[in-house]
Amino acid sequence: MVGRDEVLDLHKKAEGKTEIMPKVLLDTEEKLSTYYTPGVSIVSEEIKAHPEKVFDYTTKSNTIAIVTDGTRILGLGDIGPEAGLPVMEGKATLFKKFGGVDAVPICLATKDEDEIVKLVKNISPAFGGINIEDIESPKAFRVAHRLERDLDIPVFHDDRQGTGVVTLAALLNSLKLVGKKKDVKIVVNGAGSAGFGIVTQLLHSGFKDIIVLDKNGIIHKGREGDMNDFKMEIANTTNPQGRSGNIQDAVKGADVLIGASAKGAFNKDLIAHMNTKPIVFALANPYPEIEYNEAKSAGAYIVATGRSDQPNQVNNILAFPGIMRGLLDSRAKRINYEMLYNAAVAIAKSNGKLDPDHVISSSLNKEFAIKVVPKIAATVAETAVKTGEARTNITYDQAKERASKLIKRYNSMEKRNRKYLV
Amino acid sequence: MVGRDEVLDLHKKAEGKTEIMPKVLLDTEEKLSTYYTPGVSIVSEEIKAHPEKVFDYTTKSNTIAIVTDGTRILGLGDIGPEAGLPVMEGKATLFKKFGGVDAVPICLATKDEDEIVKLVKNISPAFGGINIEDIESPKAFRVAHRLERDLDIPVFHDDRQGTGVVTLAALLNSLKLVGKKKDVKIVVNGAGSAGFGIVTQLLHSGFKDIIVLDKNGIIHKGREGDMNDFKMEIANTTNPQGRSGNIQDAVKGADVLIGASAKGAFNKDLIAHMNTKPIVFALANPYPEIEYNEAKSAGAYIVATGRSDQPNQVNNILAFPGIMRGLLDSRAKRINYEMLYNAAVAIAKSNGKLDPDHVISSSLNKEFAIKVVPKIAATVAETAVKTGEARTNITYDQAKERASKLIKRYNSMEKRNRKYLV
Repeated sequence: MVGRDEVLDLHKKAEGKTEIMPKVLLDTEEKLSTYYTPGVSIVSEEIKAHPEKVFDYTTKSNTIAIVTDGTRILGLGDIGPEAGLPVMEGKATLFKKFGGVDAVPICLATKDEDEIVKLVKNISPAFGGINIEDIESPKAFRVAHRLERDLDIPVFHDDRQGTGVVTLAALLNSLKLVGKKKDVKIVVNGAGSAGFGIVTQLLHSGFKDIIVLDKNGIIHKGREGDMNDFKMEIANTTNPQGRSGNIQDAVKGADVLIGASAKGAFNKDLIAHMNTKPIVFALANPYPEIEYNEAKSAGAYIVATGRSDQPNQVNNILAFPGIMRGLLDSRAKRINYEMLYNAAVAIAKSNGKLDPDHVISSSLNKEFAIKVVPKIAATVAETAVKTGEARTNITYDQAKERASKLIKRYNSMEKRNRKYLV
Repeated sequence: MVGRDEVLDLHKKAEGKTEIMPKVLLDTEEKLSTYYTPGVSIVSEEIKAHPEKVFDYTTKSNTIAIVTDGTRILGLGDIGPEAGLPVMEGKATLFKKFGGVDAVPICLATKDEDEIVKLVKNISPAFGGINIEDIESPKAFRVAHRLERDLDIPVFHDDRQGTGVVTLAALLNSLKLVGKKKDVKIVVNGAGSAGFGIVTQLLHSGFKDIIVLDKNGIIHKGREGDMNDFKMEIANTTNPQGRSGNIQDAVKGADVLIGASAKGAFNKDLIAHMNTKPIVFALANPYPEIEYNEAKSAGAYIVATGRSDQPNQVNNILAFPGIMRGLLDSRAKRINYEMLYNAAVAIAKSNGKLDPDHVISSSLNKEFAIKVVPKIAATVAETAVKTGEARTNITYDQAKERASKLIKRYNSMEKRNRKYLV
């Protein structure tokens, strides 16, 4: 990685990481009068008469809003909407590079849940999807939940759903490798956005024996203190034996230990008390709950982290571009767990040779964007059609071809425009 | 112009007229880790520590929101935010092509003034300017006024201020041609966004003898019925002799007749009662208050309209890209009439040989974007610095060079990317 000064210099040179480019030629009077007045009024009248055609004629079909209130930016916490902007721009570049998706950062000067919900609803006409990003939990859950209920475009919460999908993909491959089934005992440490996303995705994917902890210990029915609606949901859907206690209690005999918490939350002793061939996903960013080497030396059979400099990086970039691509191309109204499960399966399958240090694809594999993302998009779009959430009847093959075309287009333009890029 | 079907086909083929493109290369792991995690957190922390640096490191420095509620889209009226989107996208393409400005359409699902104001304030962290577009008046005035008061980025109301600037530019050249001064008698028919914009700009540019009419006749002090705060302002600042009556009364002996009203509002008889060498600007769109030929045959010496197929097109595209460019490059906090006056003078000067059919430049002149817009931007930026509204000390020459560079960059990319554009 480049040093601090160079990171700042490159950002300064670029003056921001995205720009709004016309997709149409504006080099003649005829073109100008087609794309602006008077020609454009024909398009406006057509949409007024047939509202669903807004998807045919405008950017709504390919544009999402990345919405943050700046309260939980990366590991930096509540640093505000302006300081969050470079992160949202970075996310927008990834949406385009890996998914051909146009993403607009919307950084909010309010932290109020009601205001955020109302605002996103009010800006929704120009967007085909919403990506909730780096909003503190549990507010982020409530915002996403209310928007899902009220909007007719999909609301994706990457910190929750993206993490859930990629973790599930890595887990499916890991279980295949160790020869275990969905009846494994799973412990999830952390009940923020990522933890909640992992748990709900696993529950909707056939896993039943899950225990979840927050910093006050195991979440169970009847626990009092530091509960909210979402922890209540966890209490009601996990921990079938109603266990209580701390992480030492939870981890005894567990097959899988997943951390979505903080540096240092796991130690060797925990891993030593797990079942055979322990699977440990230490996903805290940028510093995992336990370092890869330490976990391996404690007997972990498979270790995954969020780090790019260690094996098995659980990285949301494997999921969000393809999922959003598929949602947009099916013109989906909502996201469901079936789409997300199928996306996870597509990601899991894209992994090459399966061994303890290769349970998940690397997104830095050059071919990932062009070969795997279209498959993720296609399965999401196909599932949207099957589950009645799509506005189109796009097929798997059509969706795959479209995604491939759009991603290749971007990558060709990136190459062609090198001299204008920083 | 191309026909209806082709306009629709081209819009469908393009799938919307703008896209969000990365300005940075994302082709290596090092680049990804510079522009996204973990590198980007250095930038976020720098902005958190030094909030003003958001202009150095992010898209805020070059990005504006084009905000509409869909209530007054072109001549189509209240057709809603979705039907307004193709127009806002078109405007965004013009901002980029002619000004190198990145513009994001924000189409609102609310028409409520308070909601609009609150929303724009809440999305402002990521934007360096706001362009209020196609919102019905007088709500648009109130929205712009409240935002100007509360935000620290410029709020441009093109229907009002852009029209005011281009009309002033055409009037300055017209007066030069007929050898008259700022003591001319001016009649403005129409008190909506355009009419109000023209009147206030003229009043702040040294013109004093102005009579304004709405559909109920001459606006004067003490008039009752169909008044609002803005018409009260007109009543208090124009019509020094306190005249009342209709347009026939107003136009007697007038040197200049400006229409910002509707087709058919003027007739030959009106022009026959004007002073020598009548100047008639019939700016209603797409059909002027009186046709060019009819006005000429009635004795008008100079006739301007909003039409591209007639001489003297008064077209906002001459103004808004350069004004916004200058506002962004000076990192201005607010717009003032001095900036707008100087912009009008720059536009007026860009006109070539002066004759009755050439009192205003054509924006379709290929050289306009590259040669004239940088001068408009430079005078706006210079005036922002002089009047204490700028966050930078950019000079005229620096602003001109920067504008020129950004506009050339876009036009080179358009050429290079032809095969990807519709």
